[in-house]
Amino acid sequence: MEYRIEKDTMGPVEVPADKYWGAQTQRSVNNFKIGGSRQQMPLEIVHAFAILKKSAALTNAELGVMDQEKADIIATVCDEILEGKLDDQFPLVVWQTGSGTQSNMNVNEVVAYRAHVLSGGSLQDEKKKIHPNDDVNKSQSSNDTFPTAMHIAAYKMVAETTLPGVQKLRDTLKAKSEAFMDVVKIGRTHFMDATPLTLGQEFSGYVAQLDHAMRAIKNTLPHLSELALGGTAVGTGLNTPKGYAELVAAKIAHFSGNPFVTAPNKFESLAAHDAIVETHGALKQLAVSLMKIANDIRMLSSGPRSGIGELLIPENEPGSSIMPGKVNPTQAEALTMVCAQVIGNDTAVSVGGANGHFELNVFKPMMVNNLLISARLLGDACVSFNDNCAIGIEPNKPFIQRHLENSLMLVTALNTHIGYENAAKIAKKAHKEGTSLREAAIALELLSSEQFDEWVKPEDMTGSLK
Amino acid sequence: MEYRIEKDTMGPVEVPADKYWGAQTQRSVNNFKIGGSRQQMPLEIVHAFAILKKSAALTNAELGVMDQEKADIIATVCDEILEGKLDDQFPLVVWQTGSGTQSNMNVNEVVAYRAHVLSGGSLQDEKKKIHPNDDVNKSQSSNDTFPTAMHIAAYKMVAETTLPGVQKLRDTLKAKSEAFMDVVKIGRTHFMDATPLTLGQEFSGYVAQLDHAMRAIKNTLPHLSELALGGTAVGTGLNTPKGYAELVAAKIAHFSGNPFVTAPNKFESLAAHDAIVETHGALKQLAVSLMKIANDIRMLSSGPRSGIGELLIPENEPGSSIMPGKVNPTQAEALTMVCAQVIGNDTAVSVGGANGHFELNVFKPMMVNNLLISARLLGDACVSFNDNCAIGIEPNKPFIQRHLENSLMLVTALNTHIGYENAAKIAKKAHKEGTSLREAAIALELLSSEQFDEWVKPEDMTGSLK
Amino acid sequence: MEYRIEKDTMGPVEVPADKYWGAQTQRSVNNFKIGGSRQQMPLEIVHAFAILKKSAALTNAELGVMDQEKADIIATVCDEILEGKLDDQFPLVVWQTGSGTQSNMNVNEVVAYRAHVLSGGSLQDEKKKIHPNDDVNKSQSSNDTFPTAMHIAAYKMVAETTLPGVQKLRDTLKAKSEAFMDVVKIGRTHFMDATPLTLGQEFSGYVAQLDHAMRAIKNTLPHLSELALGGTAVGTGLNTPKGYAELVAAKIAHFSGNPFVTAPNKFESLAAHDAIVETHGALKQLAVSLMKIANDIRMLSSGPRSGIGELLIPENEPGSSIMPGKVNPTQAEALTMVCAQVIGNDTAVSVGGANGHFELNVFKPMMVNNLLISARLLGDACVSFNDNCAIGIEPNKPFIQRHLENSLMLVTALNTHIGYENAAKIAKKAHKEGTSLREAAIALELLSSEQFDEWVKPEDMTGSLK
Amino acid sequence: MEYRIEKDTMGPVEVPADKYWGAQTQRSVNNFKIGGSRQQMPLEIVHAFAILKKSAALTNAELGVMDQEKADIIATVCDEILEGKLDDQFPLVVWQTGSGTQSNMNVNEVVAYRAHVLSGGSLQDEKKKIHPNDDVNKSQSSNDTFPTAMHIAAYKMVAETTLPGVQKLRDTLKAKSEAFMDVVKIGRTHFMDATPLTLGQEFSGYVAQLDHAMRAIKNTLPHLSELALGGTAVGTGLNTPKGYAELVAAKIAHFSGNPFVTAPNKFESLAAHDAIVETHGALKQLAVSLMKIANDIRMLSSGPRSGIGELLIPENEPGSSIMPGKVNPTQAEALTMVCAQVIGNDTAVSVGGANGHFELNVFKPMMVNNLLISARLLGDACVSFNDNCAIGIEPNKPFIQRHLENSLMLVTALNTHIGYENAAKIAKKAHKEGTSLREAAIALELLSSEQFDEWVKPEDMTGSLK
Repeated sequence: MEYRIEKDTMGPVEVPADKYWGAQTQRSVNNFKIGGSRQQMPLEIVHAFAILKKSAALTNAELGVMDQEKADIIATVCDEILEGKLDDQFPLVVWQTGSGTQSNMNVNEVVAYRAHVLSGGSLQDEKKKIHPNDDVNKSQSSNDTFPTAMHIAAYKMVAETTLPGVQKLRDTLKAKSEAFMDVVKIGRTHFMDATPLTLGQEFSGYVAQLDHAMRAIKNTLPHLSELALGGTAVGTGLNTPKGYAELVAAKIAHFSGNPFVTAPNKFESLAAHDAIVETHGALKQLAVSLMKIANDIRMLSSGPRSGIGELLIPENEPGSSIMPGKVNPTQAEALTMVCAQVIGNDTAVSVGGANGHFELNVFKPMMVNNLLISARLLGDACVSFNDNCAIGIEPNKPFIQRHLENSLMLVTALNTHIGYENAAKIAKKAHKEGTSLREAAIALELLSSEQFDEWVKPEDMTGSLK
Repeated sequence: MEYRIEKDTMGPVEVPADKYWGAQTQRSVNNFKIGGSRQQMPLEIVHAFAILKKSAALTNAELGVMDQEKADIIATVCDEILEGKLDDQFPLVVWQTGSGTQSNMNVNEVVAYRAHVLSGGSLQDEKKKIHPNDDVNKSQSSNDTFPTAMHIAAYKMVAETTLPGVQKLRDTLKAKSEAFMDVVKIGRTHFMDATPLTLGQEFSGYVAQLDHAMRAIKNTLPHLSELALGGTAVGTGLNTPKGYAELVAAKIAHFSGNPFVTAPNKFESLAAHDAIVETHGALKQLAVSLMKIANDIRMLSSGPRSGIGELLIPENEPGSSIMPGKVNPTQAEALTMVCAQVIGNDTAVSVGGANGHFELNVFKPMMVNNLLISARLLGDACVSFNDNCAIGIEPNKPFIQRHLENSLMLVTALNTHIGYENAAKIAKKAHKEGTSLREAAIALELLSSEQFDEWVKPEDMTGSLK
Repeated sequence: MEYRIEKDTMGPVEVPADKYWGAQTQRSVNNFKIGGSRQQMPLEIVHAFAILKKSAALTNAELGVMDQEKADIIATVCDEILEGKLDDQFPLVVWQTGSGTQSNMNVNEVVAYRAHVLSGGSLQDEKKKIHPNDDVNKSQSSNDTFPTAMHIAAYKMVAETTLPGVQKLRDTLKAKSEAFMDVVKIGRTHFMDATPLTLGQEFSGYVAQLDHAMRAIKNTLPHLSELALGGTAVGTGLNTPKGYAELVAAKIAHFSGNPFVTAPNKFESLAAHDAIVETHGALKQLAVSLMKIANDIRMLSSGPRSGIGELLIPENEPGSSIMPGKVNPTQAEALTMVCAQVIGNDTAVSVGGANGHFELNVFKPMMVNNLLISARLLGDACVSFNDNCAIGIEPNKPFIQRHLENSLMLVTALNTHIGYENAAKIAKKAHKEGTSLREAAIALELLSSEQFDEWVKPEDMTGSLK
Repeated sequence: MEYRIEKDTMGPVEVPADKYWGAQTQRSVNNFKIGGSRQQMPLEIVHAFAILKKSAALTNAELGVMDQEKADIIATVCDEILEGKLDDQFPLVVWQTGSGTQSNMNVNEVVAYRAHVLSGGSLQDEKKKIHPNDDVNKSQSSNDTFPTAMHIAAYKMVAETTLPGVQKLRDTLKAKSEAFMDVVKIGRTHFMDATPLTLGQEFSGYVAQLDHAMRAIKNTLPHLSELALGGTAVGTGLNTPKGYAELVAAKIAHFSGNPFVTAPNKFESLAAHDAIVETHGALKQLAVSLMKIANDIRMLSSGPRSGIGELLIPENEPGSSIMPGKVNPTQAEALTMVCAQVIGNDTAVSVGGANGHFELNVFKPMMVNNLLISARLLGDACVSFNDNCAIGIEPNKPFIQRHLENSLMLVTALNTHIGYENAAKIAKKAHKEGTSLREAAIALELLSSEQFDEWVKPEDMTGSLK
């Protein structure tokens, strides 16, 4: 590979000749060989930085601290980044400095040097027309840009991937709930037979869970919409022109299409990432909800002959490399694995969030990486589960009917007529002797056959809340 | 010990002769010897049950399915429980059935048998005037009463202990922030010297964190205010009279003084405890915030001679059994231990929340136990930290001044005058040679002494966001 | 309440007149009102301190730095503590200073003042014959005594409660495994029907899990057996006589009956609690194992009519307050709740363990509290689950037989005869048409009825590993 | 893109014409669009499968159930995989079926079809010479191959990346400990000044932590060395020839160079992944240790002027994009971020491990993915921290000396001469009046200047454990 020499305040560094990045990026490449290519800083952060750098340059120009021409060329490169043209220029891993300074500098260098080339210069020129720090990073610090990029990328992922994915699944489950509202089935508590409900009622609980989860996630978005930019090094806004913080937030809101505002307190925005903790906490709640739903569906569809078998799910692929004809609830498995991961990521985010010190939390890249992964996995997994499983769910009526008829817990309908203790006698006798409830009830002379028929109607037992 | 014989549907059980509880409570005492007396079901749950049982009885009477006299005697016993008169009648541990059925029956039995005694009966009577199931538990199931008691107890603890505790600490920090707003000090990022800010600004970040945390907690209260009662066994409301769910929720709201409503979807309320997950998630966020604040304060007060030493905190007790005269940041330590516990409890709550199946989550006692513990510990610890530490915090001005004057990062003020790279040269020269910035700047002939004085004013560097 | 005045280096404090504790204990009572009586420092720690103080006093005497008489009276009081006579003298909560200094001083004060009374003095005497610091704490610091007490209490709990509890359950499961070794049943993978195995084989997996878990726990005991005592304030052993560390460890080993040794590196023993992290990690592994086992057993015993129903478990108590005759797997629920708690506690322990600084970790009381709770809950819950559930487990042979006969996955036995794809055709045809495998196989003309009988023998399919 | 048609038991699927994979792989590509390319099944798993498939084929041949020729061609393709030649043939993501069946089939298909091509066939041939299930998967099931691949990949990563990385760092810290053994410095407990120790002693604690962590990791390797292979579908070994399990384990041990053995209990090996939980638990312990060490080093090197400043660490890159000349402890930050991630991953692994059911745990890909990530990140981060930070650590002697001389805690040396309370008076007076201990001591007339010099020698205070 050919190299050119770039310099920073620490001296010269060899950089691959054809790359736009400079000395500081290369130092990070050299010094942080941790985790390999799978652990690169998410491109969502790079793209968020592009929105940020463009907004900052234009704001600097508007406030008279940067030539408009410089601002425009910076904005042009940022647009190239947003179009994905420079995706191979961001080689750094998540596991770098905890402030994300190196990724901020990676963007600063790539923007500056690409701008230099776009302006007719050569990467080999020692002096570039645009300076990474003095121009691209003007009125900024890593300490306010990185958290700003965190919020931009996180908000976007939650709003554009997570929530739509959940909504899609929620809508399918809602439709199923309505379609199955008259399918009376046995209830199960403690994994044991209980009084009946309808399959639609059962699914309505899932819908309520997801509605609550989405509301909880949305509750966190105002905090996530607060941007640190304008705080610079420690939150005081040193080296920023008057009016900068508000104006740059407005531009970011405009270019990103999300309702960002400048953070009322910049010290909090740099020193803590409670907004990330808060949003991830809500994602974790969603994971908890989805784990329950996916478990129910796989257990209800267990069988095909020796399980519960009350649901039929789509048969998407051969389920076993050794057992011919086997079909498995693979979408539920992928989804529950995602949920377990999100629960774990939440712990990582909490540990990072709790360990900021003084004016800066230095677990930034780790925290946002977990948030982006969790948010995307949940959104994607909901869509996958929806498209490949939920939309195809159908009741297996023969199984449902058999389980319902067998149930001893229909006896509960008798409580208000003959009392809990007498009802228990009937259930216990039927259980012990393997008979029906009716047979046991009559044998015990606690009620007549006609009374049994009148009082024990499974469909009536599901009704009060429909 | 003397015993009497009580019976349930499974047969006779020996019960201590002087206790109000009956057969089912005793079975749980016998069968769940797990953890000892420190692991008893929280009294907050018992008291929440008292509100619930009273409300249910009065609702049953109002809706015509119970004699008013029975309802009144039940209500009388519930009032005794709320006054703490029967606290020794609830011996069960958290580690029982996951539905909390045994604690529900414990309450049912104690209320029924105490009512029997209040009505002139004797505990030795085989037949009691009030039946635990048919009367005290009328229109109820453990499956809807226990989650209702969970929400009552949890809401109350959060609203009456956690939030007031946090608010108290927040108000003290706010007052400190205002009092210290002109104390210019060195900033620290990455634990390293950075540009200055004021001590008041630093504390304003803590205030912002706690404001966000309280808002996040309050966002979860609507979910927590939803009551499962009226769902009975599986959420369908079997064996409840018409209008019951709404009326009983209104009574609970009235007697508890908290804005409870009946849950729109009872299936969710029994089968999932996402509301507990949600509220505990917000408590965990608070723990993350408090960990950061407490760490800062103990680190800033480190010393007294060989640490950072910029804060003076109250000297509450001898700090060491071997080192005479030592004073330690013990309140910060208690608080951060609480925070670590809450972060752990959050994982436990998530695991429990994710593992409900079908119509019932059976991790109920564990989940609410963690929520009550976390909510109380946080509230109590905030008050303790406030009263014994925060209110006494004072700046140690000689240390603050010395650190500020020494700082090389004041050089940042020169960026906009001479550029980042020249400024770096000054800082590096001063660092290397152990001189002041001014000396290095002048030696490098990058600016004049007068310019230095004009441009490098720490107090001006903190100003833009004040 | 009546009070007397006690003094420490900070001045006078009012102490309840009848209590043996002194000024520093009272300061902690006053300053740390966090969590109430349920959050008291575990008595196991107090008792561990009694062993420690006795051993230290006798060692001091033996090494000539304390009068034998003083040592003897100290030892006498320690014996009283170990007999439980002074349990009400230790009022402090876990949430105190993170070094546990206050609990160390609580013990120092109680031992000193009780010794004074035993020697004929009065609590009202201003000067006591035994000094809490100079005598009871001689050659010690909180910084080495508290971690020593942690290890003593933790080792004891693990060795005397956890491991015997697990062993008991393991032995029952082993006996069941052997008893059920010929009960051929359907296997289930992905919750779906799979090839057969025997119930004994299934249980043998549980036995293997518990064997591995116990081995993992035992692997951690050597680290836990290392005692910090002799390190004093920062690990250097300042103010200890020569030979002290080894001798005092030997005495502790003798009095406790556990194989304690002096830690080879005292700096690690004070500044980190990786031994606690290590042991708790192994307890968490056990929790993971038990969660799996308990889940299996409750799912296999689900029903009684509309579940899997292959196991019969003891009916210990009425399962429902509304559904008469219901029986639930309550022991499995208690056990899985314990497991969830332990998984959460592990996170708390990790957070505490990771946050020690310099010469001292100050999350000590929280860490050991979690370890003691987890270790006890696991041990107790294993015994409870064993006595009230596992020993009574029996196969429900009619269900087992029906599930086995119905299974389509017996087709797997044909793979080696007719190939995976042909076998799949048979299974799919039988599944689609609701017929038996034999019928489908013959209809497809892939083999003869005799071949089917020869090749498809469920009992042969379980055999190779028996 | 051009496609060809491949079939499995569910029918035809379009597959990219130039890819070796077949129908089942393609179904997974189509059905599990979760997380994108960053979430692909780790190549370490693919390579482990190559060792496994080669070993199985050769074992099958040796035991007479496969033609040697077939076995040889399978082995040849496996070698190609191990050389990395087919890395682009494994497109599946982690978030697939929880058994990893699809990745097993991906390997089966690629091996079969590549073997077909190597044998002169064409990918377009409908019938291939080698069958993915009947040949490549012979005597196997996903249910035993995937856990086997998990153990192979995990063992290798831990043994070849984690442990050597930790050892390297440990050796550096050991060398530093020895080099710094005479550098007397102030100790710090509770972040507060304490009695002195040497810098070498402080570092010796780190060495002890890493020694314990490595021992803990090694303790888990025997469990991890147990291979499931030979259990096939549910652990019974159905469809395997006699002697297969032992022989194939021996071959895997041979080809991998690690001491693998066949698992004594295959039911445990499929149904639970406690070995993964166990090893990850030890990695988490290591993370806890490293967090402490890295925190100490960054705090000790804080400054350069207004922090603790007792250590000098290498200056690797400019630390700030706005503050010129700033240098940060970036390696410590990367390492602590890794530690936080590992603590979180441990929770994910526990949740997955606890949720296996019956004969199969279906959180396999998630679990092993976390283990591989954690093991690699820790190993890499230790090397990075070692090479770029630890080896360059030097004491900053002027700071160390100043802190030592200032310390009031040297007073502790007087305890054994004048008692704790008198010593406290000296320390408090000096603290209050800002004088030296000597001055305060003499002013209080508690000892003479000569006695002070004789008794208070910092270097003597560090000595007893050296």
